[in-house]
Amino acid sequence: MVFLSVFMASLSRLRVIAPSLRSFSRSPVPSLLQSRTFTMTTCDEFKQAPHKLLVIPGPIEVSDEVLFANAHPAVSHVAPDFIKGCHREVVFTKDAQPFLISGSGTLGWDQVSANLVESGENALVLHSGYFGDSFSDCLQTYGANVDLVKAELGTAVSQSVIEEKLKAKKYKVLTFTHVDTSTGVLSDAKAIAETVKRVSPDTLIVADCVCSVGSEEIRFDDWGLDIVLTASQKGLGTPPGLSIVVASQRAMKVFESRKSPVTSYYASWKKWLPIMKAYEAGTPAYFATPPVNLINAYLASLRQITRASPSLEERFRLHREASQRVKDAASELGLKQIALDPAFAANGMTTVYYPDGLGAADILPRFAQRGLVIAGGLLGSIKDKYFRIGHMGVTVVDSDRGDVDNIVRVLKESITEARSQKA
Amino acid sequence: MVFLSVFMASLSRLRVIAPSLRSFSRSPVPSLLQSRTFTMTTCDEFKQAPHKLLVIPGPIEVSDEVLFANAHPAVSHVAPDFIKGCHREVVFTKDAQPFLISGSGTLGWDQVSANLVESGENALVLHSGYFGDSFSDCLQTYGANVDLVKAELGTAVSQSVIEEKLKAKKYKVLTFTHVDTSTGVLSDAKAIAETVKRVSPDTLIVADCVCSVGSEEIRFDDWGLDIVLTASQKGLGTPPGLSIVVASQRAMKVFESRKSPVTSYYASWKKWLPIMKAYEAGTPAYFATPPVNLINAYLASLRQITRASPSLEERFRLHREASQRVKDAASELGLKQIALDPAFAANGMTTVYYPDGLGAADILPRFAQRGLVIAGGLLGSIKDKYFRIGHMGVTVVDSDRGDVDNIVRVLKESITEARSQKA
Repeated sequence: MVFLSVFMASLSRLRVIAPSLRSFSRSPVPSLLQSRTFTMTTCDEFKQAPHKLLVIPGPIEVSDEVLFANAHPAVSHVAPDFIKGCHREVVFTKDAQPFLISGSGTLGWDQVSANLVESGENALVLHSGYFGDSFSDCLQTYGANVDLVKAELGTAVSQSVIEEKLKAKKYKVLTFTHVDTSTGVLSDAKAIAETVKRVSPDTLIVADCVCSVGSEEIRFDDWGLDIVLTASQKGLGTPPGLSIVVASQRAMKVFESRKSPVTSYYASWKKWLPIMKAYEAGTPAYFATPPVNLINAYLASLRQITRASPSLEERFRLHREASQRVKDAASELGLKQIALDPAFAANGMTTVYYPDGLGAADILPRFAQRGLVIAGGLLGSIKDKYFRIGHMGVTVVDSDRGDVDNIVRVLKESITEARSQKA
Repeated sequence: MVFLSVFMASLSRLRVIAPSLRSFSRSPVPSLLQSRTFTMTTCDEFKQAPHKLLVIPGPIEVSDEVLFANAHPAVSHVAPDFIKGCHREVVFTKDAQPFLISGSGTLGWDQVSANLVESGENALVLHSGYFGDSFSDCLQTYGANVDLVKAELGTAVSQSVIEEKLKAKKYKVLTFTHVDTSTGVLSDAKAIAETVKRVSPDTLIVADCVCSVGSEEIRFDDWGLDIVLTASQKGLGTPPGLSIVVASQRAMKVFESRKSPVTSYYASWKKWLPIMKAYEAGTPAYFATPPVNLINAYLASLRQITRASPSLEERFRLHREASQRVKDAASELGLKQIALDPAFAANGMTTVYYPDGLGAADILPRFAQRGLVIAGGLLGSIKDKYFRIGHMGVTVVDSDRGDVDNIVRVLKESITEARSQKA
């Protein structure tokens, strides 16, 4: 809770410089100031423009408060109070090392590949969709020997296969995609961590949680994870542009004892670690200019996510319930999902095959006509055969918005209309 | 101008979804909607909160229009119309290849080092401050053999030294910092390009223009530059978080004919080139999620920068005039500047030594008390001996703001007061 209170303190400090001057424009204006307008926007007054509801599996809908924080006036990038807290609460860790770097979620793979794996070391990549291929590609770029284990489409790699692989070879790291955004397949992070700790305790456990932080339960310390890498634009409810990595102290020791130099400059923890420590200590530091506004927006979103009510546990429950409603609606329409079993289905998104004889052109525009933006397929082999709906963040947690009702209604209307027009 | 008009088209498309609904809250509210507020913010209504004037050499003051664009509602990252234009106008190029990637300016060094230089190749780095050391460090990280040529403090490397170096060894790339933010030293980009083309025409000319695009004249095509790398938060007047690189077709050919694989994943042009081409063609594409809001803000700023009046040429003149006023004020106070000659002095920033017997603690808080945030020193050897003032973007171009008047007044007051209190 200490970090949460530091967020709060730093945010309230930012907030006090935005007093309501709404009535200013109605007051007599001194002649010297006549050339400037003093209509002022405060957070309470700021409402984002009307727009189509964005329910793809990230980026997601952003709250007014977070967007307003993204429009904060310019501040210095080395000012001691612009960031003092970080990203521990949401993944339940006390002492892991956070890295906040300007970049997309992809940059998290570079951070892992360049800092934790040395050329010629072995990496085991569990594959449950598109992002397993990409992480493997990234690790190989930095010289790792990668073994890629592909699960059957719609499932995650089983614990027995993981055990078999770990017994057959020594791996520096094992990586898995907690929720693969291409398939909507959820991996059992807790079970994977247990298997690795039992069979190969020295192997670092790397969780790609880009599409799961904030929408799925992640117990970093309790489960013994070494890396959670994520990004700002999904369950964290912030615009994209922030790569967020949390590393265990064990991972930091592995990093500090590496024999060869780090082979990236921008993603090098040698450069970033002193900066992250300085940020938390409240002292100015510089390696590269951080995305000040985006960090401000991220802290505003974290404040919403980690507040007392709804609690994080309640948030996870709300995601599970919303997910169940969307998945039930798809089933009632006779639509087949990619996840072969509910245990493999993510709670922040749903992937559904198009009905027989129908495709993207029949379904996606019908959602758009009704004000909803959803996503087509991403996984190469079945790219044109399915669509994806995201249900994360404010869309799920703020029931007054009615977003989940809309998703369910528009899903039914669009499928029904498309079927009747084809018939 | 074709690219400019594409920016405009894409911006106006974004703008139409934000109609003024200001009067909505005063209309009778249908009962179904009572739970939601309909006060709406349009760009005309949005004014950023009062704050200290940020006049460090970047990030700089951001206009209301650009901040409002940064608070745009969430949009899909693969939507075909969210970006179709790019960054050619500001540096006067017709056909160079732009790369817009989520990251800080530093990422531009990684792009150059990982894509254009192969391990064991030679790089000549011209050093006029802190950022020469860093670029050299980055090039070496990716395996380049770097020769670092340091200019006397307050000057840039002379053309005769450059010629001598280029005659003695074959270099794959030559890099220089157009304006080094640590010293405020301006390099003569046109003369450097002429020297390289005359003496070693195969050497790629790489200009680090993080602190010069928008505030200094850069004629990419006319001068024959190969790389201009920059970032969003200085002369481009946008919050930080966007790495912007423009590469000549010659540089792209060198990249495409490289023999060894690219040694970065996130900074790899193999990954980004198809994406950038797709963005310009208006087709969806995905490698990593782009910072949608920041790109929206950047396009809004580009629209302001490239509009007819003031023209780009007038902008450069306004920067020169503002710079002269600040430098004259410093001279009148008897303060010594780092630039040893006006020819080496940047137009977007000014670096000044503290008066004898005074330091940061005597000067910086006096600026802050008067509502101005300036920067201390950055170059290790003289870090505590000087301060830096930025004068770029709206601060210079929008004279109604009175920012330059303020800088000059506060400079005089702060120095005079500090001297009298020490005396």
